Amino acid sequence: MTDTRPSLTIIGFGAFGRLLAHHLAPHASLTILDADPTARDAARARGLDVLTDPSALTADIVVLAVPLPALGTCLAQIAPHLRPGQIVADTCSIKEAPARLMRELLPKHVEVLATHPMFGPNSAGKDLRGQQLVLCPVRGKRWRRLGALLRRGLGLQVIVTTPTEHDRQAAVTQGLTHLLARAFSMLGDQPRIRTRSFALMSDALAMVAGDAPEVFEAVTRQNPHVLPLARDFTQKLKALGETALTSGD
Amino acid sequence: MTDTRPSLTIIGFGAFGRLLAHHLAPHASLTILDADPTARDAARARGLDVLTDPSALTADIVVLAVPLPALGTCLAQIAPHLRPGQIVADTCSIKEAPARLMRELLPKHVEVLATHPMFGPNSAGKDLRGQQLVLCPVRGKRWRRLGALLRRGLGLQVIVTTPTEHDRQAAVTQGLTHLLARAFSMLGDQPRIRTRSFALMSDALAMVAGDAPEVFEAVTRQNPHVLPLARDFTQKLKALGETALTSGD
Repeated sequence: MTDTRPSLTIIGFGAFGRLLAHHLAPHASLTILDADPTARDAARARGLDVLTDPSALTADIVVLAVPLPALGTCLAQIAPHLRPGQIVADTCSIKEAPARLMRELLPKHVEVLATHPMFGPNSAGKDLRGQQLVLCPVRGKRWRRLGALLRRGLGLQVIVTTPTEHDRQAAVTQGLTHLLARAFSMLGDQPRIRTRSFALMSDALAMVAGDAPEVFEAVTRQNPHVLPLARDFTQKLKALGETALTSGD
Repeated sequence: MTDTRPSLTIIGFGAFGRLLAHHLAPHASLTILDADPTARDAARARGLDVLTDPSALTADIVVLAVPLPALGTCLAQIAPHLRPGQIVADTCSIKEAPARLMRELLPKHVEVLATHPMFGPNSAGKDLRGQQLVLCPVRGKRWRRLGALLRRGLGLQVIVTTPTEHDRQAAVTQGLTHLLARAFSMLGDQPRIRTRSFALMSDALAMVAGDAPEVFEAVTRQNPHVLPLARDFTQKLKALGETALTSGD
């Protein structure tokens, strides 16, 4: 029987690449490309097919599971090997910078899609049903079919928007949340006396604090919308604290 | 058959008094005392017995479900009517100030217990099982039996501590959380793009933002541990934001 599933290569077999591979394996003819022999062994150990060189990149869809600081180099390495009509999608936590890099560095004959799966190794459950996937189309139209496949196959909630709108919202959702989580962890011992709301918030912040350091960097340093937001929020918090407290009885 | 349950009067039939009455009714011979005729009608409409005057305060246990600003007046009104051996317990969100007021204003012949149920009308589920109740014994020893009753009868997790230690922990659990919730609500539209951790945090903060304004006042203005904590947290957040962001590429 012919495999009618799309062929898909994940580049990068770190924690996030492994998560993607696990969930995409049933829905695609999957291969893994990673420059690191240890990562390739880990992929083989999971029964996955491994490519050893970008020249073998013939899949319909190429998904880049590499962190933002490595994205430019990765794009430059694969660009010469891409074929007309392939779809290339990144998965970085911010979207303006990767969209710009992909537009600049990828050949005109490939379709380009900036994506942000709003889940990670710490927050994904045993399936991804109901989790969000943000799609920012950069070039081409076949992202619609890919979006439909991911919605149907994985039960993802697909949100289509622009890279700028994504980054503006992610500055709150992720940037500010990561800053709060880190500031909270610096307070030291967590209180034993707690309300249900505090316990919920504490769980949420612990989930965030468990993310890889690259994620913190990406969602705070590399999103230009975070700095003004963090300043505004800090100012509001300071004013609230001082007003509420110094005018007290 | 004789009613072997303790007799218990709740003073104050606001949102929190109603919540307590609902959960305590099966475990005590319950009466309500409230100066407001509308509140008394509401209690009667729920089939509860109502006292109209503090001189009728003969219950084994008297629970004060009044906010901190009203506590002094309430204590002064009931003090002349209390009988030797009664237990009087407040339920304010902070514990140092109420414990001091009760010690000063209640006669030596009553037992005094400062309590903080770590749940409210917005966070209590259909039962209270697993929710925390903080007990700070101020005078007398019968609070132990009351604590055991609440643990067994309502499934509460009873935590015994001092008023100061309570307020120190509640400055994080409630004070800081309420300040964060209010600052968040001032950011305007909540982002549609969200991680699971952000959704959790958002739910937690919405739960807190739904609390009565008196609760915000009590847990921020009236807890002296909040001001230094809020300053420290704001400073950490500001430093994290600026360092993370201005050193970026």
